[in-house]
Amino acid sequence: MIKLNCDMGESFGVWKMGADEQIMPYIDMANLACGFHASDAVTMARSVSLAKTHNVTIGAHPAYQDIVGFGRRSIQCTLEEIKSIVLYQLGALSAFCKANGTTVAYVKPHGALYNDMMRDENIFKAILSAISSFDKNIKLMILSSPRNEEYSYTAKIYSIELLYEVFADRNYNDDGSLVSRVHDNAVIHDELELVSRLVNLKEKNFIQSINGVKLFLKADTICVHGDNENAVEFIKLIRKALI
Amino acid sequence: MIKLNCDMGESFGVWKMGADEQIMPYIDMANLACGFHASDAVTMARSVSLAKTHNVTIGAHPAYQDIVGFGRRSIQCTLEEIKSIVLYQLGALSAFCKANGTTVAYVKPHGALYNDMMRDENIFKAILSAISSFDKNIKLMILSSPRNEEYSYTAKIYSIELLYEVFADRNYNDDGSLVSRVHDNAVIHDELELVSRLVNLKEKNFIQSINGVKLFLKADTICVHGDNENAVEFIKLIRKALI
Amino acid sequence: MIKLNCDMGESFGVWKMGADEQIMPYIDMANLACGFHASDAVTMARSVSLAKTHNVTIGAHPAYQDIVGFGRRSIQCTLEEIKSIVLYQLGALSAFCKANGTTVAYVKPHGALYNDMMRDENIFKAILSAISSFDKNIKLMILSSPRNEEYSYTAKIYSIELLYEVFADRNYNDDGSLVSRVHDNAVIHDELELVSRLVNLKEKNFIQSINGVKLFLKADTICVHGDNENAVEFIKLIRKALI
Amino acid sequence: MIKLNCDMGESFGVWKMGADEQIMPYIDMANLACGFHASDAVTMARSVSLAKTHNVTIGAHPAYQDIVGFGRRSIQCTLEEIKSIVLYQLGALSAFCKANGTTVAYVKPHGALYNDMMRDENIFKAILSAISSFDKNIKLMILSSPRNEEYSYTAKIYSIELLYEVFADRNYNDDGSLVSRVHDNAVIHDELELVSRLVNLKEKNFIQSINGVKLFLKADTICVHGDNENAVEFIKLIRKALI
Repeated sequence: MIKLNCDMGESFGVWKMGADEQIMPYIDMANLACGFHASDAVTMARSVSLAKTHNVTIGAHPAYQDIVGFGRRSIQCTLEEIKSIVLYQLGALSAFCKANGTTVAYVKPHGALYNDMMRDENIFKAILSAISSFDKNIKLMILSSPRNEEYSYTAKIYSIELLYEVFADRNYNDDGSLVSRVHDNAVIHDELELVSRLVNLKEKNFIQSINGVKLFLKADTICVHGDNENAVEFIKLIRKALI
Repeated sequence: MIKLNCDMGESFGVWKMGADEQIMPYIDMANLACGFHASDAVTMARSVSLAKTHNVTIGAHPAYQDIVGFGRRSIQCTLEEIKSIVLYQLGALSAFCKANGTTVAYVKPHGALYNDMMRDENIFKAILSAISSFDKNIKLMILSSPRNEEYSYTAKIYSIELLYEVFADRNYNDDGSLVSRVHDNAVIHDELELVSRLVNLKEKNFIQSINGVKLFLKADTICVHGDNENAVEFIKLIRKALI
Repeated sequence: MIKLNCDMGESFGVWKMGADEQIMPYIDMANLACGFHASDAVTMARSVSLAKTHNVTIGAHPAYQDIVGFGRRSIQCTLEEIKSIVLYQLGALSAFCKANGTTVAYVKPHGALYNDMMRDENIFKAILSAISSFDKNIKLMILSSPRNEEYSYTAKIYSIELLYEVFADRNYNDDGSLVSRVHDNAVIHDELELVSRLVNLKEKNFIQSINGVKLFLKADTICVHGDNENAVEFIKLIRKALI
Repeated sequence: MIKLNCDMGESFGVWKMGADEQIMPYIDMANLACGFHASDAVTMARSVSLAKTHNVTIGAHPAYQDIVGFGRRSIQCTLEEIKSIVLYQLGALSAFCKANGTTVAYVKPHGALYNDMMRDENIFKAILSAISSFDKNIKLMILSSPRNEEYSYTAKIYSIELLYEVFADRNYNDDGSLVSRVHDNAVIHDELELVSRLVNLKEKNFIQSINGVKLFLKADTICVHGDNENAVEFIKLIRKALI
């Protein structure tokens, strides 16, 4: 069964983002911001409690330290900095989980940190090292691609299990990378096309690239988005297509 | 045996504070900043490692969120905010401890949060509640005073044990409060006087007030300071007087 | 002619607040956040440009340095700190004004800083001093009250002119202070009552207190709010009542 | 006459950096931090006042928004973000200058922003655009190199005059770039060698590269450093060599 994961808990101070209360009942895994790109201590306390109420698995969503840039801007960090900021954020979120009688089940780096992890093996290792030093039962979510084996090989060195995520509403290049958001066809808005892709993924284990290449991608989870107007309806549609 | 505790790990980014490496060998308990009034993820990683190396007990030193004010300025927070920021910082520090095979043994609130905790029972309870929800084995350090019983009574409701600290180099008023730093005689600089006070505290369990009143104060630990020039010599002197 | 002022430019990073583009055409004075409680450099650039386009007078809306608390929490600052943070924010906003061929016309402190200014003469003076040292043509907006003369007397020492604002949609106590938001009757939601108050204010120069006392309050400007659903309609209503 | 410029005002909150009071009497131009990589409102107020007292020309030293990284880490910013953060910081510093009866005479970007400006023409233009929109009398300081003409050509489009700085204590590659700090010979520590280089620069207008190539570099100013132990003595030595 493919799980739905969604970035949640991305409000900050007085500023609200996402209809977390409406969406939480329809997802399986909540990637909770940890205060470096979004969220704050009170928001984290509430988000963990909300996820717990709906039996949603909790993941840490650590980022570069850049609230004003929402963690979308790459920051030239040393590997020691990356390991330390992941550990810091993971620990902070864990405290709220512990206080709610639950745990952090996985880590999904956010925004620029996620992209940098996928393209730079040393950053990938720094993140693995952080998680491994904290709790080897915590998994790391990465972008599923034809290079899954390579990542898996490295992760095993750190005794960390990977979760592979697919973006059902994003177009893929033939090499398994995502079509950049600078292109018009980056995101799939058509519902029928989306459902068709999900059915292919569920039943035949592939996503079709923009040029029709069948990309056989391991899909533990699909990333859904909670910050647009029709988010709840869209998520329900995806959930239905995957059952 | 009265322990020596010291605020440590209060560097921030490129800015250094305190001779942590020189002082760590001579103290028993390190109150480590958690990123809200001082320190950052890398500094925390290094500080925990340094404390571990010297078998120094680690305490979390959470503060109001105010780096530029070093946590010395009281911020009007709700109780939910106070509970959440303590939990956040406690969790963050715990992660570095866990990664180093150790744990946070106690919490000592920093600066304005410490003062606010001592004067406002609801803030004291919010802090107890944060610790209690995270780990009931973690103790809370407070200012030893004639009102210790009251605090202890409240702490027991949250199943939290208290640690009482005395400031050997600060003058006390007759009611057991510290002479405010706005007064010239707030701090005791004379070494002989300091040693005499320590001997009284160790052997006869009292500290003398500015008016000569004997204040019988429980002393689990004495607070020493690491940010002045002669810090190491001064700490050695105190340690010797207490043996 | 009583002007309408409104807090604007309070988005932060990716987080949006207020329908600034919809509201700007209907107000006279925009209190623009300066990055300490809300806003960021890009938001300030855009907000100044938007105000300029609609010929709206620009005011600086400086605050305590507390993004996560939206400047609503009082922070124990020294007077040197208050003077300096006001000057810093005033200068930052002025740069965007200068780049757009306009100027900052007034300062309206935000949130807790506004309240602290009204209750603490030294804070009021620190703010006056900051403005006066920067540009004596810039006015300071304060809460109109029976004590206007006192404030005016002090402001003259700093060669600063005051602007008096009235909150038409807030209930007043008999002494001219606002009914605290902790009470149910703090805000007036009834449109007819609001219009009636505005007409009284415009034609007879008074606001009625909760106990029916007529408070004769100088009203250079009325504060309107842009962050609720019916903000535009409400502001149009107020504007119409004041013409 | 070649001027000496020095990064100053880089303390932050309680953390001190540099012996500003000792160094200020011996430099000509102070590059003052503006709160994004170092400094805070109070530190800026004091730094401007100190510079004014010693008749030192004041420059703004804007940076990426990254206190914890001291502005040394490149952040992927849009050009709108770069223009806006430069304008924000320039305005903030200008306010303190205005309050002290002086002005910002030039801008020298800090750390990663300086490096990014030198290698990316669009970033260079974004900075020029910010300054130009604020005050065309403010100059921009850049690294003197064999490519000065190119930069000058671009700067003229924005009506901004450039100041060329040379690093007397840094080794240069044959192409006029600085030897990277990752190499052992990046910095020249030998006083005799330094004096010899300064004399060549002053009298014959060249700096010798590591391979003996004579680099004829326009030198309006030399950058000196205030954050090491012998800073004052070293600066005096340089000043003497240049007279």
